[in-house]
Amino acid sequence: MTIRVGVIGVGVMGSDHARALQHVVSGATVSAVTDLAADRADALAGELGARAFGSADELIAADEVDAVVIASPDHRHAAQVMSCLQNRKPVLCEKPLAPNLDDCRAIVDAQNDLALPHPLVSVGFMRRFDPGYVELAAAVATDAVGEALMVRCSHRNVASHPGGDSAATITNTAIHEIDVARWLFKSEIVEVSWHAGRSTPNDPTRQDPQLLLLRNAHGVLMVLDIFVNARYGYDVRCEVLGVDGAISLAPTPLTWIDRALQSRTAYPENWRPRFAEAYRLQSQAWIDSLAAERPSPLATAEDGLAATAVAAALIDSMKNNGAPTAVQH
Amino acid sequence: MTIRVGVIGVGVMGSDHARALQHVVSGATVSAVTDLAADRADALAGELGARAFGSADELIAADEVDAVVIASPDHRHAAQVMSCLQNRKPVLCEKPLAPNLDDCRAIVDAQNDLALPHPLVSVGFMRRFDPGYVELAAAVATDAVGEALMVRCSHRNVASHPGGDSAATITNTAIHEIDVARWLFKSEIVEVSWHAGRSTPNDPTRQDPQLLLLRNAHGVLMVLDIFVNARYGYDVRCEVLGVDGAISLAPTPLTWIDRALQSRTAYPENWRPRFAEAYRLQSQAWIDSLAAERPSPLATAEDGLAATAVAAALIDSMKNNGAPTAVQH
Amino acid sequence: MTIRVGVIGVGVMGSDHARALQHVVSGATVSAVTDLAADRADALAGELGARAFGSADELIAADEVDAVVIASPDHRHAAQVMSCLQNRKPVLCEKPLAPNLDDCRAIVDAQNDLALPHPLVSVGFMRRFDPGYVELAAAVATDAVGEALMVRCSHRNVASHPGGDSAATITNTAIHEIDVARWLFKSEIVEVSWHAGRSTPNDPTRQDPQLLLLRNAHGVLMVLDIFVNARYGYDVRCEVLGVDGAISLAPTPLTWIDRALQSRTAYPENWRPRFAEAYRLQSQAWIDSLAAERPSPLATAEDGLAATAVAAALIDSMKNNGAPTAVQH
Amino acid sequence: MTIRVGVIGVGVMGSDHARALQHVVSGATVSAVTDLAADRADALAGELGARAFGSADELIAADEVDAVVIASPDHRHAAQVMSCLQNRKPVLCEKPLAPNLDDCRAIVDAQNDLALPHPLVSVGFMRRFDPGYVELAAAVATDAVGEALMVRCSHRNVASHPGGDSAATITNTAIHEIDVARWLFKSEIVEVSWHAGRSTPNDPTRQDPQLLLLRNAHGVLMVLDIFVNARYGYDVRCEVLGVDGAISLAPTPLTWIDRALQSRTAYPENWRPRFAEAYRLQSQAWIDSLAAERPSPLATAEDGLAATAVAAALIDSMKNNGAPTAVQH
Repeated sequence: MTIRVGVIGVGVMGSDHARALQHVVSGATVSAVTDLAADRADALAGELGARAFGSADELIAADEVDAVVIASPDHRHAAQVMSCLQNRKPVLCEKPLAPNLDDCRAIVDAQNDLALPHPLVSVGFMRRFDPGYVELAAAVATDAVGEALMVRCSHRNVASHPGGDSAATITNTAIHEIDVARWLFKSEIVEVSWHAGRSTPNDPTRQDPQLLLLRNAHGVLMVLDIFVNARYGYDVRCEVLGVDGAISLAPTPLTWIDRALQSRTAYPENWRPRFAEAYRLQSQAWIDSLAAERPSPLATAEDGLAATAVAAALIDSMKNNGAPTAVQH
Repeated sequence: MTIRVGVIGVGVMGSDHARALQHVVSGATVSAVTDLAADRADALAGELGARAFGSADELIAADEVDAVVIASPDHRHAAQVMSCLQNRKPVLCEKPLAPNLDDCRAIVDAQNDLALPHPLVSVGFMRRFDPGYVELAAAVATDAVGEALMVRCSHRNVASHPGGDSAATITNTAIHEIDVARWLFKSEIVEVSWHAGRSTPNDPTRQDPQLLLLRNAHGVLMVLDIFVNARYGYDVRCEVLGVDGAISLAPTPLTWIDRALQSRTAYPENWRPRFAEAYRLQSQAWIDSLAAERPSPLATAEDGLAATAVAAALIDSMKNNGAPTAVQH
Repeated sequence: MTIRVGVIGVGVMGSDHARALQHVVSGATVSAVTDLAADRADALAGELGARAFGSADELIAADEVDAVVIASPDHRHAAQVMSCLQNRKPVLCEKPLAPNLDDCRAIVDAQNDLALPHPLVSVGFMRRFDPGYVELAAAVATDAVGEALMVRCSHRNVASHPGGDSAATITNTAIHEIDVARWLFKSEIVEVSWHAGRSTPNDPTRQDPQLLLLRNAHGVLMVLDIFVNARYGYDVRCEVLGVDGAISLAPTPLTWIDRALQSRTAYPENWRPRFAEAYRLQSQAWIDSLAAERPSPLATAEDGLAATAVAAALIDSMKNNGAPTAVQH
Repeated sequence: MTIRVGVIGVGVMGSDHARALQHVVSGATVSAVTDLAADRADALAGELGARAFGSADELIAADEVDAVVIASPDHRHAAQVMSCLQNRKPVLCEKPLAPNLDDCRAIVDAQNDLALPHPLVSVGFMRRFDPGYVELAAAVATDAVGEALMVRCSHRNVASHPGGDSAATITNTAIHEIDVARWLFKSEIVEVSWHAGRSTPNDPTRQDPQLLLLRNAHGVLMVLDIFVNARYGYDVRCEVLGVDGAISLAPTPLTWIDRALQSRTAYPENWRPRFAEAYRLQSQAWIDSLAAERPSPLATAEDGLAATAVAAALIDSMKNNGAPTAVQH
């Protein structure tokens, strides 16, 4: 049985999803696409042999759409997920589920009200499928370095989207680290604080880098530095410090060049090469669960809500000079 | 259009192929399997919803088989590939195409006699699809380290199949390095010599490690050390030394653990984790070419023949006390 | 001209100093040693051909002592340094200059009152002579990664001295990171905060690990994690994040072993192999300056005072639930 | 007691020796220097407070010279060492002891004829004092990776001295690898062969790179690639492959920079930063042995002879189209 997927929003992220579903995911085909930019939707529809729809609602309701991927701008996620729920269509929504806590809660409630055997909503925290993070999480789960005490994560982008503010760094970028922090330890973040120092001149509208401290219900302290204009490369790091040792993600270069008195490896320019395999594995796992009518193994709407709740507390701390702030779940 | 594949030989390698084609390759399904051990074929057929055939010939001839994968013992490859040619079925044959040079030539001749628009035979030199080798080859092709002068490759397995001899190391294991040596530089190997020193006590029936010297038509000297009982891990290395620098495959650990006064990363026990992605990409490329009726981008029967010719020259050098030996193409 | 050095305190640190001065530093000899444990002093005196003194004051006053190294317990440093000043003897005092801020101030004042052409007091912040830190500092000074924005440092010991408290971690261990933070940027630390989460069960008398945030007068934010019972090895890391990139200390293994499905390098058990070269270079630089009657290039009494002032602010923050705390200079 | 050293030949190598002996070796002073270029000798003599002599013979004979370092051109070594023997002066001769086998034998014989309690001649194979090689050798000696089977070494220089020939690469550069090969296993090299492929256009007067195969009396096969115009950096590698695993020298960068989509470390331009510590430790060990009237722990005249014998066999193989060639001891 082939799952026919409709993709909402076909910018860089959405068209990556669509092409992967069509070409490298087993058991899926892309039957429908839509985008506010109709020509972009038409072009991709032509390329993939899919149908271009004029609106997200029409796509979601269409008979030829068994399941939906949402890769539209963050503030549209909530309404589109709600429409999927109303149409009883399984949906993989890109992170964040919604930047707004109330919207997240409304989705969780609406889904619960449906009382279906399996939840419909999945959230695209694809790092849960990255082989490196999976190996790290397995090691943590088996106490390979002893009980966890502290975590250090770094997230560096080459350059930010222009015009964003410091809150957008948290809801759009740090949200990945927040989900990792929850997922690694199966424990909720209970308190956070926000810190900053000197900011890069390359992004006048936001504080960059930021330093985020999170503490979970087990007392593990997590230090996240997020630098969205790091220039040097797309780079994601994670180290878990335990009672008996430490475990870290390894760098992921493919080759290494010795030339001109240097030994060097390449950084990717963005997340696409770094996490292509994670996206593929996430999509395959989602499609497999739909085909087998099993629960989705992806992050849930509740995970999406919890991550946004932590982001909201961080933004409160930021507005409050870095004061320690409890997370409202 | 879904390509229905029949798999001949479903040991470790063949069942890996079959499961990947069924579950992670887009556009393919496994319709048929066969194995000398009928219960093994039956079990996998049941698992995948395929049909178990009593013989390779029946499977190849079956209407429900659009294309064939051969993962049987090396000495059966030739007859099965010939049968595919007779039935005009595209075939992906695991390396070596055949351990015997005459068999390889017969296949190439038979395929040429068919005078089809696209060759039917592909050979599973999957390293050509490994992202690391692909990046290395692209760098070589663009002279990223200048014109190539020398190549150093290492191939280490944890333990050999018991009972093999020194020639089997060459035809079964070194054959990968030989293909890489040809593929990287698009130049034939013209002369070889075989060298050895102290041998491990862990494999009394063969010389291990071996050291192989190859020289291609451009004069590039290649040094391959092959150690199939290296014990420490499955490890494949390649360094190309050019006029302006050097490029190497990077190691591929996912995480790194600090514990007990050591910092350590893991080696895989065998080729499966190391080259899973290469196999997936090779199979996907093969299926895509069949669906689109394009020529296969995999290694060809001619590549298979050329690799076996180099292996034969190495075995001659081995029998001749390491004398430099010309390759008979 | 050979400088005759007297060493006060000949435990692990002091006897390392004495042996290095005698055997691997050019232009120095050890003429005198003393220790509260007289037998320890006698043994080392015999080994080195030096004279054992019954008290620090006698050693400092002795004619055969041109210069003094202090490696006694931290709380004795101040009185011994004062005695050196009274006797006009150059002194290299191990860090901290004194754990107590008033004592540090008294030393600085006493030295200033002497109005000598060159200061007599040097402080053993030997990382300033470690080749890795020197290369890092040179890169920072030349803006190799652009203007600095954030710094991440880690300090991990295998196991702490039993019975210490959380403040001792700061005055005795973190003091090195504090000096590095000042020295790298030639800028004072102005504000700090102290953070902690789950603590290791292996040291019931102190919080471990600790997380320290420092901000200097240029606004650079520094994150130091200090874990004195990390068990896995002695490990010191430093990364400076700048506008254009990042620079880090490289790990310092000498060899790398592949065995038993692992690739591994060794961590030292303690600071001695890691910083042996830094200590040697520091001692040589100190002796050279004395021989040439040049100012000492080592950290000064003022550096010692400044580091202790930062440590004091961190301890205040610790006692005040992690509140941001200004450093009193 | 201070050892007064005379240095013969004060080019790059000799003046490095002299400055180290004067400034960073404990217990030594440079009392005399000489060089064919008298102004160079005068300048260094002035800098170090030493006396400049008009000839090597005068320096060797001078009362104020307790011991001699020879860093003159290779072809002058033999006569100068003989003069040291005649004057009963301990001598540290830079490698090679002599490029010519007869000269090496004459030195060994002359020294034996003296029948002194300790040999006078040491040879500057300083890698024996490099901390990395020392750790590697200790691991080999304790079978940390099992009995050795094969060794792979690489030696790469940025650029060769112009005008040298292929034999000079062996006697002047590969000689270090030859000594390492002997020293690691305490076993003589018995057979060698010389191989080459494409040569760099950057050095028209010699084959570059070269590939050397050595076999020792235990049957261990060693593969050395020597590339003296590698351009990318000064780089020395060594891997010992044993029955149970492998051990390699680790790279030695101090810092690591992330910038411009690359992560990179620096290679030195030449041997000086890479082996500065090895030279210092070698000189200190030599001076210590002289002061204590113990035998020198450095490489002996016999080691120098054995290395030159292997080099001679390699040159014979080179002249004989790479034929396997027995070493004449």
